[in-house]
Amino acid sequence: MAEPTTTVSALRWRDGLELLDQRLLPQRERWISIGGAAAGTRAIRTLVVRGAPAIGIAGAYALAVEARRNPDLPHLRRAARRLATARPTGADLARAVGHVLVAIETAPSAERFERALAAARGLHAADAAACLAMALHGAALFPGEGVALLTHCNAGALATGGIGSALGVVRGVHAQGRLERLYACEARPVLQGARLTAWEATRDGIPVTLLPDSAAASLMASGAVAGVVLGADRVAADGSIANKVGTYALALAAARHGVPFVVVAPTTTFDLACPTGAEITIELRSADEVVRLGRRALAPEGVTVYNPAFDVTPPQLITAIVSERGVARPVNEATVREIAP
Amino acid sequence: MAEPTTTVSALRWRDGLELLDQRLLPQRERWISIGGAAAGTRAIRTLVVRGAPAIGIAGAYALAVEARRNPDLPHLRRAARRLATARPTGADLARAVGHVLVAIETAPSAERFERALAAARGLHAADAAACLAMALHGAALFPGEGVALLTHCNAGALATGGIGSALGVVRGVHAQGRLERLYACEARPVLQGARLTAWEATRDGIPVTLLPDSAAASLMASGAVAGVVLGADRVAADGSIANKVGTYALALAAARHGVPFVVVAPTTTFDLACPTGAEITIELRSADEVVRLGRRALAPEGVTVYNPAFDVTPPQLITAIVSERGVARPVNEATVREIAP
Repeated sequence: MAEPTTTVSALRWRDGLELLDQRLLPQRERWISIGGAAAGTRAIRTLVVRGAPAIGIAGAYALAVEARRNPDLPHLRRAARRLATARPTGADLARAVGHVLVAIETAPSAERFERALAAARGLHAADAAACLAMALHGAALFPGEGVALLTHCNAGALATGGIGSALGVVRGVHAQGRLERLYACEARPVLQGARLTAWEATRDGIPVTLLPDSAAASLMASGAVAGVVLGADRVAADGSIANKVGTYALALAAARHGVPFVVVAPTTTFDLACPTGAEITIELRSADEVVRLGRRALAPEGVTVYNPAFDVTPPQLITAIVSERGVARPVNEATVREIAP
Repeated sequence: MAEPTTTVSALRWRDGLELLDQRLLPQRERWISIGGAAAGTRAIRTLVVRGAPAIGIAGAYALAVEARRNPDLPHLRRAARRLATARPTGADLARAVGHVLVAIETAPSAERFERALAAARGLHAADAAACLAMALHGAALFPGEGVALLTHCNAGALATGGIGSALGVVRGVHAQGRLERLYACEARPVLQGARLTAWEATRDGIPVTLLPDSAAASLMASGAVAGVVLGADRVAADGSIANKVGTYALALAAARHGVPFVVVAPTTTFDLACPTGAEITIELRSADEVVRLGRRALAPEGVTVYNPAFDVTPPQLITAIVSERGVARPVNEATVREIAP
């Protein structure tokens, strides 16, 4: 079997952190140089980079960049705190930034940058390796030929430090010559499915069909979908997951039609300190994402908007959770702990 | 109780048919004069006017306009056939155009236009009356104070010849001083919820909150929604309905959370010749609606798209169907026949 690969990446180190500005895709590919922690915080908050693992890695590198600029420890602690809370829902960011901060705190001043960079690089490499492991575990959950998979948002190379979590599994099935088609939900309001997943799939020669989020339920009813495969921003101890808003509706439709619903998430997104989905903070984002597209108004001025970035899906609706450490199936606290870090 | 009213309308007769160009809302209010059946067919196909009842009335008036231009009977029959099939999913259009054609066929040549116009006006008035009757029947299904309702797409004044079907019910609850809030799903890809329902509600002073379609399931999980109320483009004999894509996913979420799911549809949308939802033709629309917004590309060039305009919801997921003739509850073939034409 060919090993799954990709030509796409969300971030790179070129004597400094560079992020692919995902807000401009699919029209333009622009790399932004991140000069320090403040720029990193801003880039995370404004969705230059998104996807829990990629956010974590970007935060880690951004703190390393800051350590080169100013190795003062109290300063770096403050910068780390701001970076760690740039977005509230994912579990990776705080953990990755904390990991780099520990490397900094245990190093003499002159070595802080080098140690921080090594820590960030380690996280990056570990995530790439985790993606590969998840691709192998996950592809085995969808046996047979002519497999059509449906995904939501972007849990791909653009969301991770490797070939992606959910899209890593898709790439795994594709590398085995068994993928019929990837159905990509567009993921309103920011359209990560249309702008990122469709772009990433097209780039790598994966046959992809784009659909409005609301068309997924009837597509599943038609029998066209062999499995739903998507990522998670946070996995709670009971196996509840927070993921891009719309995930919960997909889980309900999949359950109704007996379509396997598989969550693919590296253990960095596991948060066993969070007992259930009810304790996950759901980020509410601005009305602008819903009522405007560029300069075009999509709704009357001043209308009230409900714009949660994520929703919570309970374990009863999840067929399996795949981490780099294996597969939890059925999904419950015991099986989640087995594949947790 | 104050009678529910609206300041909004989709069409008007001013010595000729005029349609409000709904494609330009909410930015601009432009009325288009429809010079004949061909222009009417085009307007229906391109969504200048949409919503099954409004499409039917527009088609009826458009045939009347054509009868004034050219009263030749074979010509009018051909024009009627083209009008009747401008969009395939709704039941109203073919029926309304057929109704006007009967009036034409039974009239001497000199009276064809007058008779056709009278027939179209009759359909228009009947629909307005049906909306009022449905508002009263439907409002009673949501008793109590502080009622928050969720709707999808636009089943309002812009979709009918009166105060709307689903939005007529919302206006009924509002006129009774009991409406806390209307939640309006945006209805990708054409965004009728964002562009039309939010506009229509704002116009009439109805408190409205807009949300991405995919956020509705978690909103229902939160307990914020007392009922889902929406229209239908076609009601089959078994109580299955075809309505704007996304309706089915809302029905699944409503059932999961015990939220009443109420379909409001005048009997003109009932099609008892269609035994079940499986027999309803679902219109597939162009990729452009999904991949472009104005001139802006939302997805990579040339990506394949699945863009069904409607989906089918089975009767088991529908709490009640309201027509102007009463309420079917529970929904099954017997109760549907009781409130059918």
